[in-house]
Amino acid sequence: MATPQTTFANDLKAAMAKVNDLFNSEVIGKRDFSAIDQIYTEDARILPPGAPMISGRESIRGFWRDLVQGGNVKSAALTSVDVMPSGDGVVEIGKATIAAEGGSMDVKYVVYWRTENGQWKWHVDIWNHA
Amino acid sequence: MATPQTTFANDLKAAMAKVNDLFNSEVIGKRDFSAIDQIYTEDARILPPGAPMISGRESIRGFWRDLVQGGNVKSAALTSVDVMPSGDGVVEIGKATIAAEGGSMDVKYVVYWRTENGQWKWHVDIWNHA
Repeated sequence: MATPQTTFANDLKAAMAKVNDLFNSEVIGKRDFSAIDQIYTEDARILPPGAPMISGRESIRGFWRDLVQGGNVKSAALTSVDVMPSGDGVVEIGKATIAAEGGSMDVKYVVYWRTENGQWKWHVDIWNHA
Repeated sequence: MATPQTTFANDLKAAMAKVNDLFNSEVIGKRDFSAIDQIYTEDARILPPGAPMISGRESIRGFWRDLVQGGNVKSAALTSVDVMPSGDGVVEIGKATIAAEGGSMDVKYVVYWRTENGQWKWHVDIWNHA
């Protein structure tokens, strides 16, 4: 039987999966970098391997534009490994396979999710290679 | 004037700084790997660069023992960059300078803190190179 808790958890996971899929289908697949607005909060921060922390959605958009176009990235399939609701936020552990012209690689990540105007988005995003 | 909020924030930051210092002084400085008990929760997970995720405090202890002894690590000074309380947890963005026999390097990290028996500890710990 669906309890309110399991319904909430399923709704949350579905909302998160939708955002994760947007990253793959729109940002990577279609190179539509305006979709970054639906994925990252305005004051989000990313911590990419081999580069300093980047703060703010506009700078994050530039980072992904450069990386996706420069590396000819083809897809980035994200999979949640664990989802930990924490107050108004959620901490997600996940893994991804990134396919680019030069080959594919596995990464693992932690994303701290917050809501912005009622939408779940990535607020802190850090990853490294598996 | 100290409000209850600022007092809580200061107490929290002091408690976190104490744990971060333990890592440097005990685990790295004295190679006392029993101090891992005071730093990580029992079911903590770490996501080290270049290796798969490691689950559970005993396995994490083994990871640090191998790395500190094998790499002859001398110090790991951790600095909080941002502290975001989130329900029963805290998300911390930080940076560290790791000094070893071969030289020093800068890393940046995200730690998801939870309490275990009333003590703040690292529950999810991921880092990469700057």
